[in-house]
Amino acid sequence: MKKIGIGVLGVGEMGKRHAENLRRLTPGAELLAVADVAAARARQVADELEIPKSYGSLEALLENKDIRAVLIATPDKFHAQSIIQAAKTGKDILCEKPIALTMTDAYAALDAVAKAGVRLQIGFMRRYDPAYAAAMKRIEAGEIGTPLIFKSVGRDKDEPPMAAYQSGVNGMILYNNTIHDFDLARWLMRDEIAEVHTYGTVAIRPEVAQYGDVVASSVNLKYHKGGIGNIESYVQAVYAYDVRTEILGSKGAVFVGSIEKVPAVFLGANGGSQSLADHFLSRFADAYLAEVQDFVAALLHDKPVRVTGEDGLKALATAVAAENSLQQAKPVKVTLERSVAT
Amino acid sequence: MKKIGIGVLGVGEMGKRHAENLRRLTPGAELLAVADVAAARARQVADELEIPKSYGSLEALLENKDIRAVLIATPDKFHAQSIIQAAKTGKDILCEKPIALTMTDAYAALDAVAKAGVRLQIGFMRRYDPAYAAAMKRIEAGEIGTPLIFKSVGRDKDEPPMAAYQSGVNGMILYNNTIHDFDLARWLMRDEIAEVHTYGTVAIRPEVAQYGDVVASSVNLKYHKGGIGNIESYVQAVYAYDVRTEILGSKGAVFVGSIEKVPAVFLGANGGSQSLADHFLSRFADAYLAEVQDFVAALLHDKPVRVTGEDGLKALATAVAAENSLQQAKPVKVTLERSVAT
Amino acid sequence: MKKIGIGVLGVGEMGKRHAENLRRLTPGAELLAVADVAAARARQVADELEIPKSYGSLEALLENKDIRAVLIATPDKFHAQSIIQAAKTGKDILCEKPIALTMTDAYAALDAVAKAGVRLQIGFMRRYDPAYAAAMKRIEAGEIGTPLIFKSVGRDKDEPPMAAYQSGVNGMILYNNTIHDFDLARWLMRDEIAEVHTYGTVAIRPEVAQYGDVVASSVNLKYHKGGIGNIESYVQAVYAYDVRTEILGSKGAVFVGSIEKVPAVFLGANGGSQSLADHFLSRFADAYLAEVQDFVAALLHDKPVRVTGEDGLKALATAVAAENSLQQAKPVKVTLERSVAT
Amino acid sequence: MKKIGIGVLGVGEMGKRHAENLRRLTPGAELLAVADVAAARARQVADELEIPKSYGSLEALLENKDIRAVLIATPDKFHAQSIIQAAKTGKDILCEKPIALTMTDAYAALDAVAKAGVRLQIGFMRRYDPAYAAAMKRIEAGEIGTPLIFKSVGRDKDEPPMAAYQSGVNGMILYNNTIHDFDLARWLMRDEIAEVHTYGTVAIRPEVAQYGDVVASSVNLKYHKGGIGNIESYVQAVYAYDVRTEILGSKGAVFVGSIEKVPAVFLGANGGSQSLADHFLSRFADAYLAEVQDFVAALLHDKPVRVTGEDGLKALATAVAAENSLQQAKPVKVTLERSVAT
Repeated sequence: MKKIGIGVLGVGEMGKRHAENLRRLTPGAELLAVADVAAARARQVADELEIPKSYGSLEALLENKDIRAVLIATPDKFHAQSIIQAAKTGKDILCEKPIALTMTDAYAALDAVAKAGVRLQIGFMRRYDPAYAAAMKRIEAGEIGTPLIFKSVGRDKDEPPMAAYQSGVNGMILYNNTIHDFDLARWLMRDEIAEVHTYGTVAIRPEVAQYGDVVASSVNLKYHKGGIGNIESYVQAVYAYDVRTEILGSKGAVFVGSIEKVPAVFLGANGGSQSLADHFLSRFADAYLAEVQDFVAALLHDKPVRVTGEDGLKALATAVAAENSLQQAKPVKVTLERSVAT
Repeated sequence: MKKIGIGVLGVGEMGKRHAENLRRLTPGAELLAVADVAAARARQVADELEIPKSYGSLEALLENKDIRAVLIATPDKFHAQSIIQAAKTGKDILCEKPIALTMTDAYAALDAVAKAGVRLQIGFMRRYDPAYAAAMKRIEAGEIGTPLIFKSVGRDKDEPPMAAYQSGVNGMILYNNTIHDFDLARWLMRDEIAEVHTYGTVAIRPEVAQYGDVVASSVNLKYHKGGIGNIESYVQAVYAYDVRTEILGSKGAVFVGSIEKVPAVFLGANGGSQSLADHFLSRFADAYLAEVQDFVAALLHDKPVRVTGEDGLKALATAVAAENSLQQAKPVKVTLERSVAT
Repeated sequence: MKKIGIGVLGVGEMGKRHAENLRRLTPGAELLAVADVAAARARQVADELEIPKSYGSLEALLENKDIRAVLIATPDKFHAQSIIQAAKTGKDILCEKPIALTMTDAYAALDAVAKAGVRLQIGFMRRYDPAYAAAMKRIEAGEIGTPLIFKSVGRDKDEPPMAAYQSGVNGMILYNNTIHDFDLARWLMRDEIAEVHTYGTVAIRPEVAQYGDVVASSVNLKYHKGGIGNIESYVQAVYAYDVRTEILGSKGAVFVGSIEKVPAVFLGANGGSQSLADHFLSRFADAYLAEVQDFVAALLHDKPVRVTGEDGLKALATAVAAENSLQQAKPVKVTLERSVAT
Repeated sequence: MKKIGIGVLGVGEMGKRHAENLRRLTPGAELLAVADVAAARARQVADELEIPKSYGSLEALLENKDIRAVLIATPDKFHAQSIIQAAKTGKDILCEKPIALTMTDAYAALDAVAKAGVRLQIGFMRRYDPAYAAAMKRIEAGEIGTPLIFKSVGRDKDEPPMAAYQSGVNGMILYNNTIHDFDLARWLMRDEIAEVHTYGTVAIRPEVAQYGDVVASSVNLKYHKGGIGNIESYVQAVYAYDVRTEILGSKGAVFVGSIEKVPAVFLGANGGSQSLADHFLSRFADAYLAEVQDFVAALLHDKPVRVTGEDGLKALATAVAAENSLQQAKPVKVTLERSVAT
């Protein structure tokens, strides 16, 4: 059986999960190496998962000629640069979202990919979630008629430590969280977002303001064909990891998502209680696996990837517009111009 | 047992329900008369409910000295004028929402009420719904910590006939539907709305545009203390009458609402199906009853009403700002100025 | 409008609710009097509900010639005797379940009713519950194919005080609780129960054994046409008033019931919680009303009642068989013989 | 890293899943070989999963000295014999349920295991399901007080082909389906079943009777400490694969299970619909994995297995009693005697 030699760049929580899925559950992939600037971490993951090699730098892994494709799970701010370097060595790429933190960087990455003629898939794994995929199938079958309203909430359970804000490793709420919903908003509505309006708040944690971030945001959406919508993101919902989406059309609606972790309810004299979802790695475990399997299948069968660099660009463009709306306190049009100020 | 003599003005679908609740289920009330410009309709309702008198005009009913209080369920555009006339005759008033369709009219109504020294309650019956009331109790007890995000959807099931738009009898979507959520948004968050931003759409029914209305709207909210939120309204959701609200705070959340009509699920080879809620009169049956009972109790025990004319004014002010945002395509501050252009 | 003069016999919790429904919400009824051996209680209810007369005895009420029909809500052990007395005075009867506590008494009641030529309806109000009624409509339409399995649970929330066992006023668990399910088991399956097998337990409250009762029971069912089933009853479930039923057929299934009291969920750092149903008077409020309205409608339009004395007899026969099974520790056939030992 | 050499005996649908879990997701296991009397099937699975060896007979695999443990997934009627053969070669064993189809065979298997001093785990994988495991944790913590009532339903979705009955490869409903619930009934209630009473039906498929089987059964349970319960099994529920359990105690209750396949609801003008669970391999995917991982962990760390041969024996004894009750039409005591007639 033919296998695709793969390397994983960045083996933090997310990268390690991808490595596990590639190593154990993706028969068409041969995970040859992992790399991390923390060389010891790379080594440990390689040991644990029985991966042949580990590297202390991106560059070292990219020199490995047996590796045909890489999965990029480095911090957000290095995504674009990682893509460029990987493309230069001719490797196909599956990069975590967001593609970049600025439009300029995103275009630089896309240019490098185009020039090298390699594949680029962006990690919008929700498209591979069984529930979201089932919803899309119904929408494509016309069951809800013309899509008209898109609603989504994305709530993380636990208050991030202040260190997460200080490090600046990952993008802010709109770039790191809401970007998933910006992608769903395009994909499920089968239309492009024309304009957005954002409110944000730091009311319950004012110290976040100094890092230019908010703890919650509400982004109003307007589509080219007339649809409307709203996306809420909240990074410290306390009660659960809660991701739900509703798409309403002229003939019906689809609701996706649940906050239940396991189907078990406990009932006492003071009412009922449930164990609720708490993390994206458990909620979207199936989606993360299907995502890497689909990427590897595209390579094996020489087909285009299904979530493209352009998808990454358009979601980013929406995040940039939403951020600008928040800063400028007015609605902002979504544009694909190369140099949108942010 | 002492009873409050009451008359109902306007006995369309809503007014008739109020009459039934007053006649049969409110022991402290004595429903003495109903009035409607369609005199035959008033007579028919009086016959059916065994109410002593019916009138073909508001004025005729107001002359009845045994009537101490009136319930106004006339078309929206006559609310303010009806309040003014009733106040002049010294009667206490429970008026359906909205209090008026313009700030000028609302202030005229409030002035008349103040001058006459009568009570005015506005028909935001959702505050009396057992589920919303239970939510508020928990919020007031501090269970969700500081309220931070308000989310609400209000979806009617059936596409309104075009005649409903042509008649102009009731206010448009923001004045007639969303106004309920504007009230909840203030009440449950225990704060005032500072600014709003609205997108609306007629994409699936363009002919509605000529009447200045939309079939769906998404209103972004910003509160004085920093909270944010969003309200969606949709008048032709097809699948159900769907009213749900989420309030998120620093320590937890409350979700209110369900689309289930009766607790019965039907399961066949092609999956499950349920009977879903279809109308506000059934979904909020308990709330409508509790509302009139509370109004009558306030009169019997000489206490202030719980949903005041000022509540009506503030919800209206939010609707006016939301409408202006929709027209002007920018965020608009909520103001209580007497003469906001609309 | 023609009205049926009615009297209510027994105005404890249940009888008072019936009186309220007849007095306020059943336009075709004129509630003329209530009676209770506790004359003061009868007077108080009459005052509160503005009912013309109250009596301190059943006999006194039955002498009232303006009363055409009576609703019997006396203690279970007096049901049969009350029916007999009422029938003798020619009045139509709606009697709470069970029709009697022995087959001998039940036949005596039915004989008196037949001799007098009056109507007798038995208070199996669940048939009037919107969810159960919707289920039956689907079953009758053939949507689940041939009914094959009947499952039902009936759980009361609060541990009954020992006084309730000592008084012997009401029948034991199978006669007072499970009897509702025995009726549903016949009605929804559209077949008769042929044989039953019962296990019971007093494990968590051994002192109940001295009164011949159990705190929980599990009754296995076998139908004439081959269907099977099971009914669980539990009088101290602690967490909620929980009544749910499943009917499975060759082509599908229907599930009825929910333990949710109001559609409101509270979510905190320790998971979610809900307010749960706590009492039959709230869970089945609509059913109790529809029941008396249907009884009055049958009288007004001179039609047979829909839940007959024979239905009462057959449910009782099943309870007797279940009780005998519990005592004799073996399966027992359901028989309609006049003198089944119990 | 030390690894346990393992072989899988029988690679039908179930055995293949076990092989996948051992090969890909159980780092402590090294899956060395699979065997099946259909040698080509064994070879195909070995190829697909990249397993070193395949055999056309049980004996051939057992001769492989590198294999320390075997997973038995042969047809039910060969379980006992397979255990005996494997034990004789000194290999540890994880055997699918039921341990055997007769008490005599079960004791023969246990004797062989005891004599050889090997480990035997029985495949009651539901104990490893996250929801059931969470329930047990709460029960052990005393949250529901003294367990009193056990209720369980196990419904397969699709009507089995008649060939399944004709082949006699697997045990009948009580041995093959209900046996899972018999195990849960002991485990979750923390008590032994003393007596059972069974009704069964072939009403919608009479031709099943000739094979001594039924399409549905309802087994009443009585526990040694006084608890009671009921288990329903139904092999052609049509609407979904539906496994749910309720455990009620003196202080509360736990409900486990859901028929939802993915958290997506589709809502149209005719109500809502959902995709429902359809197969045990998807519903219990996590449980099957955790089961083999726990077995391997016991071997690696030289600890006893958690679901023992005695558990297998006791569940079988309950199935035998239930079958005898069905045949003899009376309650039957559960006994561990070596030669219960069946």
